Amino acid sequence: MADKVLVGIMMGSDSDLGIMSEAAKVLDKFGIGHEVNIMSAHRTPEKAMEYAKAARGRGLKAIIAGAGVAAHLPGVIAALTTLPVIGVPVQSGALSGVDALYSIAQMPPGIPVATVAINGAANAGLLAARIIGAYCEDTARKLDQYRADLNDGVIAKNEKLQAIGYAAYIEENKSKK
Amino acid sequence: MADKVLVGIMMGSDSDLGIMSEAAKVLDKFGIGHEVNIMSAHRTPEKAMEYAKAARGRGLKAIIAGAGVAAHLPGVIAALTTLPVIGVPVQSGALSGVDALYSIAQMPPGIPVATVAINGAANAGLLAARIIGAYCEDTARKLDQYRADLNDGVIAKNEKLQAIGYAAYIEENKSKK
Amino acid sequence: MADKVLVGIMMGSDSDLGIMSEAAKVLDKFGIGHEVNIMSAHRTPEKAMEYAKAARGRGLKAIIAGAGVAAHLPGVIAALTTLPVIGVPVQSGALSGVDALYSIAQMPPGIPVATVAINGAANAGLLAARIIGAYCEDTARKLDQYRADLNDGVIAKNEKLQAIGYAAYIEENKSKK
Amino acid sequence: MADKVLVGIMMGSDSDLGIMSEAAKVLDKFGIGHEVNIMSAHRTPEKAMEYAKAARGRGLKAIIAGAGVAAHLPGVIAALTTLPVIGVPVQSGALSGVDALYSIAQMPPGIPVATVAINGAANAGLLAARIIGAYCEDTARKLDQYRADLNDGVIAKNEKLQAIGYAAYIEENKSKK
Amino acid sequence: MADKVLVGIMMGSDSDLGIMSEAAKVLDKFGIGHEVNIMSAHRTPEKAMEYAKAARGRGLKAIIAGAGVAAHLPGVIAALTTLPVIGVPVQSGALSGVDALYSIAQMPPGIPVATVAINGAANAGLLAARIIGAYCEDTARKLDQYRADLNDGVIAKNEKLQAIGYAAYIEENKSKK
Amino acid sequence: MADKVLVGIMMGSDSDLGIMSEAAKVLDKFGIGHEVNIMSAHRTPEKAMEYAKAARGRGLKAIIAGAGVAAHLPGVIAALTTLPVIGVPVQSGALSGVDALYSIAQMPPGIPVATVAINGAANAGLLAARIIGAYCEDTARKLDQYRADLNDGVIAKNEKLQAIGYAAYIEENKSKK
Amino acid sequence: MADKVLVGIMMGSDSDLGIMSEAAKVLDKFGIGHEVNIMSAHRTPEKAMEYAKAARGRGLKAIIAGAGVAAHLPGVIAALTTLPVIGVPVQSGALSGVDALYSIAQMPPGIPVATVAINGAANAGLLAARIIGAYCEDTARKLDQYRADLNDGVIAKNEKLQAIGYAAYIEENKSKK
Amino acid sequence: MADKVLVGIMMGSDSDLGIMSEAAKVLDKFGIGHEVNIMSAHRTPEKAMEYAKAARGRGLKAIIAGAGVAAHLPGVIAALTTLPVIGVPVQSGALSGVDALYSIAQMPPGIPVATVAINGAANAGLLAARIIGAYCEDTARKLDQYRADLNDGVIAKNEKLQAIGYAAYIEENKSKK
Repeated sequence: MADKVLVGIMMGSDSDLGIMSEAAKVLDKFGIGHEVNIMSAHRTPEKAMEYAKAARGRGLKAIIAGAGVAAHLPGVIAALTTLPVIGVPVQSGALSGVDALYSIAQMPPGIPVATVAINGAANAGLLAARIIGAYCEDTARKLDQYRADLNDGVIAKNEKLQAIGYAAYIEENKSKK
Repeated sequence: MADKVLVGIMMGSDSDLGIMSEAAKVLDKFGIGHEVNIMSAHRTPEKAMEYAKAARGRGLKAIIAGAGVAAHLPGVIAALTTLPVIGVPVQSGALSGVDALYSIAQMPPGIPVATVAINGAANAGLLAARIIGAYCEDTARKLDQYRADLNDGVIAKNEKLQAIGYAAYIEENKSKK
Repeated sequence: MADKVLVGIMMGSDSDLGIMSEAAKVLDKFGIGHEVNIMSAHRTPEKAMEYAKAARGRGLKAIIAGAGVAAHLPGVIAALTTLPVIGVPVQSGALSGVDALYSIAQMPPGIPVATVAINGAANAGLLAARIIGAYCEDTARKLDQYRADLNDGVIAKNEKLQAIGYAAYIEENKSKK
Repeated sequence: MADKVLVGIMMGSDSDLGIMSEAAKVLDKFGIGHEVNIMSAHRTPEKAMEYAKAARGRGLKAIIAGAGVAAHLPGVIAALTTLPVIGVPVQSGALSGVDALYSIAQMPPGIPVATVAINGAANAGLLAARIIGAYCEDTARKLDQYRADLNDGVIAKNEKLQAIGYAAYIEENKSKK
Repeated sequence: MADKVLVGIMMGSDSDLGIMSEAAKVLDKFGIGHEVNIMSAHRTPEKAMEYAKAARGRGLKAIIAGAGVAAHLPGVIAALTTLPVIGVPVQSGALSGVDALYSIAQMPPGIPVATVAINGAANAGLLAARIIGAYCEDTARKLDQYRADLNDGVIAKNEKLQAIGYAAYIEENKSKK
Repeated sequence: MADKVLVGIMMGSDSDLGIMSEAAKVLDKFGIGHEVNIMSAHRTPEKAMEYAKAARGRGLKAIIAGAGVAAHLPGVIAALTTLPVIGVPVQSGALSGVDALYSIAQMPPGIPVATVAINGAANAGLLAARIIGAYCEDTARKLDQYRADLNDGVIAKNEKLQAIGYAAYIEENKSKK
Repeated sequence: MADKVLVGIMMGSDSDLGIMSEAAKVLDKFGIGHEVNIMSAHRTPEKAMEYAKAARGRGLKAIIAGAGVAAHLPGVIAALTTLPVIGVPVQSGALSGVDALYSIAQMPPGIPVATVAINGAANAGLLAARIIGAYCEDTARKLDQYRADLNDGVIAKNEKLQAIGYAAYIEENKSKK
Repeated sequence: MADKVLVGIMMGSDSDLGIMSEAAKVLDKFGIGHEVNIMSAHRTPEKAMEYAKAARGRGLKAIIAGAGVAAHLPGVIAALTTLPVIGVPVQSGALSGVDALYSIAQMPPGIPVATVAINGAANAGLLAARIIGAYCEDTARKLDQYRADLNDGVIAKNEKLQAIGYAAYIEENKSKK
């Protein structure tokens, strides 16, 4: 984490840290500097807003904000910066994240939030990498390699499936757990 | 509106004014002073927050905040005041207000918002009157009268229905429109 | 609980007591007198209605009513008092509380219910405190302190996160459970 | 309508009368005596309850109760009678009747409501006829005839479709409107 | 079960027997004769239809049909009898019973099904008892007693709650499990 | 329609004929013989079942069944034939077709229905053509041509868009209506 | 699996193999040759497309494609072949498969996908058998036998239920698990 | 449009052009070069994929892809480029865009799509501008100005509201339409 911080990862509660740390892990893989903060649109509104206003000046290129239920954090942050803000709806409570998805995705015209899937923190990290990669060749190369690895991983699994058949494959997967 | 302002009515966009003015009309009926403001959690976040912080000191007893789609205004206001905040989900966009309902009702622990029905601005006004009426005998009396009037209105309609039958009643209602 | 009772907490079934007791605990924290009753809109309709009609005369300032599935209790109570009624949709059954949310929030014009989140009994307690705090300076001060404590709690967590990093933080949280 | 009243049709608001009158029309067709009343669980709770309590003694065999949004009327009525209560969720407001469907169908154990489709007032009338027909041979015969007529009606339409083809059939239906 | 069979309970699969037996238990309590059958609209369509056609002639007064997912059984049965048919949506599969609720409640005009809550088999039994009780004084008396017992049960629980307080009550409930 | 009938198109009500005729038009385009019938799972259950049982013997290769709301027809037909049955959920009523989608798609194990989109009758026709095309080279060639035409149509539209720009394109589309 | 391959079973991830293998097991039962492949619309788009384009030429009669969440695989495959494509929405993630159901069923006009129930892989296998059975008498006979066995299985269960009663039946089922 | 093309706007059908042109208009306002193409994941899969693969080499910094119903285009494009892909769910068909929202937002891990609101094409344009603005000072300045203009616009509306009152304001808005 000695790299220059390019991506800020935020969440409203430490109960979301398990999910949101997936974004940090992806960025580590790409060697993209990042920081992780717990700041709430409702419990520490002023901290959160100061952070949003200062982010661009501190050199950040994107902010990833995760929140559950009435998930206001990504929208509130997006209102106070011109950086691209990526929102992660976190699954929690009775509505299983659909409330967070609607609260983040359905932003009114003027203030966009880039929404990913419910609990999609890893994809949020990848999206931040793509944003940086649009201008940074090194990151773009790593993204190409990442896609190639995904592709090879699926192909390797399929080759194994062809070799041993589905029954043995399922058995083996079970015993791994 | 010469009365002391006890209730602040807010909304993020003037497109919500038609709906939200129902709250003002109810408060007028009860002789409760109020003010109506357009302030957005996303487009004028700082105005909205200043308003929230100052509200109690200015003598307000409740705030009614209406918003559609990813409806963050009520929650953002509630985070910056200790007054009771009443949220009105406004029906707009593809999801017909269910997004606003979830964005307002599903607040996380610590910051409550009193949610009413989608487009339920009239009930928001009544709820503000009930809050004031909990401490103000005059408002309580008016609320009792209001409930009695509701009761009498339904009874009068039923008497008419019994007198003329449903076919005539439906016909008469149609011709009124 | 020797204080004057200002808030009545009701629920239709003792299976909701675990959730609804969160409201009582919040009110205890604020030193607000309260009472807890099991009364059902469907199984003890007359008891529930008597309670509603008598509440204001007994000095109550707000009623919190929790119910699951076809959750009629808050609306039925609100029809028989002019006090502000706070409805808590309780998560139970196949629809996970969305039925209770709709049954409580979507009240028709004339009879408002202040709806909180599914299982949001703690916020219901806070909302009752805010209603009382609109007129009682002592409660308002406690509400300010409560918000300050929330704020400090999140800041302390974030400081710890900065000190030990997310991996250690997650590990420590796990071992607490 | 000179027949002995066997079925009570109720609704909370005269805006539901258009839909609910379908139940009355069906009962007319079967020669089953009925009455139509506007009574609200929220606006005239006491009228509604008195009605429910007296219904059986007055000789009614079933009650049909229609309501929209947070549709409490059928459940509240069912709590105060042992007669079978048929609930009709009426489509109104932003949620298009799904709120009424959940508020009526998801009754807790102990107090059943026989729910029909959203706006299904005609089927509510038929269901009341079936309940009466379980004990009354004359009504049962009429129900058999009704099903036979339905059957013949569809067969006649199909014969016409075979005779003129779908293009002409669609054209003819359009010109009827 | 030596009594004359008045109610037929059906389900499409023996996996629904646990839920559907609640209807049988309720009818036992009321001394109403019943029979339980596994018959499927999809796997044994002809058996199911024969049953439906013969039911009235065999003296049945109501049929209770339970089914999950694309729950066609209640509607298919209702198409072949004039008896009142009570449909129980059974919770199963990915959609948690909302598919079964829609498949049963949303019947088109002409063929009504009396829908109860998801997994509401006990209420289905009570509804059958109410249908019978509309004509049978003895069953009506038992239904009155049943409602009185429900009422007394809730009142007894509330008295205990008042006596020992919510903390002790919750503790005691936990230890019972 | 002089060709040998290979596909049976069914619907429960002539109100669905407008939508369902899209399937017939697609089959006409492919020169595949078909017939259109109005038969209801609820109003003419016996006609519908006879049809299903006889279909294979009459040389049909697939059945397309459309229905709205509690859409039982496709499943009921599929229970009585071994032919592939394609279900079309028709949009009607308060739930806008989501009830029909669940009633058709969520079939229990043992009796499959091939579900297409809500109002997707044209795709139902294409799916029937693909089933026939799996064994009939001529139909397969036409399907290839159809896909090529779709492809060319989109390309032509895009070329026009490039030529005149989006503003002119939108204007021109408006004036066509 | 030495038989000529008539059905290709595909899925985007080996985590879906447990569910999707149900399709393979059904096809084994019918003696229909099949192959199972892991290929993703997103991670190995080119492999997946090559497979789709070659399928018909290799003698396949149908393709079964399973996918969860934003389930694009069936639609992407259907765009590149004229074979009938059967889509299986797999239950995974926060939305429990309703996202996959919509992503697969709601295909736009021109490219049909035959959608089965969420996790309905067994029915997908049966649907493929029905497609083949439309032209292959031997498979049709086996499908008839399969339906007869289903029918007999339910009848046997019902006979046992009649013999031992529901209480004993439930007890016995429990002890089997 | 003489500027270097930095953003590609795509949609599957020209029926989406009205909505999607909002993105183009926003980019015009920011002086960001863009191009608009009709290309379908289902009807012109190969065109769409070629476009995706070539985009980065042609100097694009982001792709905006709009689609309705089973909206596969954004995900399919994202699978073949490392550029950030912004998905716009377009409202169309019976499910009002919720199908498109799920099909776009719920992407599996590995391939992110930045989802905006249903019909949120203007916000998609703004999000593309924010991505470019993360690296381009000139665009960032314009984004700051844009936010300031939004803020001023709301303040001006509020000042007018204070000056003329809500009744006059609503009247004036009506007459504008």
